[in-house]
Amino acid sequence: MTTHYFEHPLNEKTRIYLRVEALLHQLNASSHFSDDLQHLNFFRALFDLLEIFEQIQLKSELAKDIEKQRQTYRNWRNFDGVDQEMLNTILLEVDQVHSQLMAAERFGQSLKEDRFLSAIRQRFNLPGGACCFDLPALDHWLHLAQEAKQADACNWMETLTSLSHALKLWLKLSRETGQSMMQQAHNGFYQSDAEEANILRLHIPMHFGVYPMISGHKNRFAIKFIDFKSGQAFTGNVEFELAVCG
Amino acid sequence: MTTHYFEHPLNEKTRIYLRVEALLHQLNASSHFSDDLQHLNFFRALFDLLEIFEQIQLKSELAKDIEKQRQTYRNWRNFDGVDQEMLNTILLEVDQVHSQLMAAERFGQSLKEDRFLSAIRQRFNLPGGACCFDLPALDHWLHLAQEAKQADACNWMETLTSLSHALKLWLKLSRETGQSMMQQAHNGFYQSDAEEANILRLHIPMHFGVYPMISGHKNRFAIKFIDFKSGQAFTGNVEFELAVCG
Repeated sequence: MTTHYFEHPLNEKTRIYLRVEALLHQLNASSHFSDDLQHLNFFRALFDLLEIFEQIQLKSELAKDIEKQRQTYRNWRNFDGVDQEMLNTILLEVDQVHSQLMAAERFGQSLKEDRFLSAIRQRFNLPGGACCFDLPALDHWLHLAQEAKQADACNWMETLTSLSHALKLWLKLSRETGQSMMQQAHNGFYQSDAEEANILRLHIPMHFGVYPMISGHKNRFAIKFIDFKSGQAFTGNVEFELAVCG
Repeated sequence: MTTHYFEHPLNEKTRIYLRVEALLHQLNASSHFSDDLQHLNFFRALFDLLEIFEQIQLKSELAKDIEKQRQTYRNWRNFDGVDQEMLNTILLEVDQVHSQLMAAERFGQSLKEDRFLSAIRQRFNLPGGACCFDLPALDHWLHLAQEAKQADACNWMETLTSLSHALKLWLKLSRETGQSMMQQAHNGFYQSDAEEANILRLHIPMHFGVYPMISGHKNRFAIKFIDFKSGQAFTGNVEFELAVCG
């Protein structure tokens, strides 16, 4: 059965974390420049990340959240029934990631100081603006040898390694807190309470032909299913899997 | 010898034509959805095109320009030394493209009326905004069978066929008017007069490590070569090929 996997953040910070995760994935997946369009996704992802870094203090937010997770896991030490070996492995990883993060530059600092990137960033978002005459320096760069371009991409991405590790770990630990359970949305509607939740994870069977519209916050949320074809509220029942993650 | 092929428009209209050509190419090249990122380029190109259509009356501008080309070619009828058969073939093609263009809807009209496209267009340009929670309808669409997505893409692109044909022809005829000649930029600088020129086409050997900054208009233009590594004006001589196209 084909299912539609769907994640929804229940607060603004998690929303940004998921966006950054998606952008880092796009950056990585398009860094081979194996066709003549991949660079568009690569630079767009890079510049979108820079824009996000300018808007919020991502590094300190993430450090705080990793610290919170560390406290939670520390509290489980010496608890009966908790696998202490696994716990220690996690705590070790959390420690490493946290100190890497603290040692890192402000996210995007060296990317912002890169002359080539700064020059093309300004004109990159013109509609159709990635033409050679709008961005002659980029066009020259695109004509360089594949290895030279990939080496540049590696250098740029390397500056984001500590962000990437920290975010991956936080999201992994957060996602693992939720347990997937079958739920039913009566007449296309479902609501529930939660406790300090960050992410909802849904698996929706494709055969219903619906997608979710979700509203709510860390302590309460509602899911309304929309019929894809008509764009209207779906009035049938929908069985789906839901995990509420802290 | 690797060369950097570079085109520069000498007026605002041609600038838009070249942008639209690049966007149509991006649309086409990313319409197979063969990896999980191609749709980003596809929808971005589509929405950039819609933005351009909203800014200028592209259809009537293009029709006027095609008409101008028709007049030019008609004037060559019965001229000695002009291949009349080839001329007639061109004129027939111009006639076809022109009447197709006149019969077409306003560019982008049916795309703008498409409920699905309108719904995702608004949020598509948020930084990192192509996440599932920002665009749940798009995320559902991405989970459809490959054939269904490709069929949608075909239908959307079909509405731009007459634009694509007309633009391709106009640019082809325009590009063919110029003859490529070797030129030398002394101390990295070259300037020349032109006559009602629309496009400059350059081939620059990559080993100079330079890219061009071009200014000018249909009757006069200047090319300044910039050293890619330093970002400063290049002070050596540059041999390059140049075609000035009407």
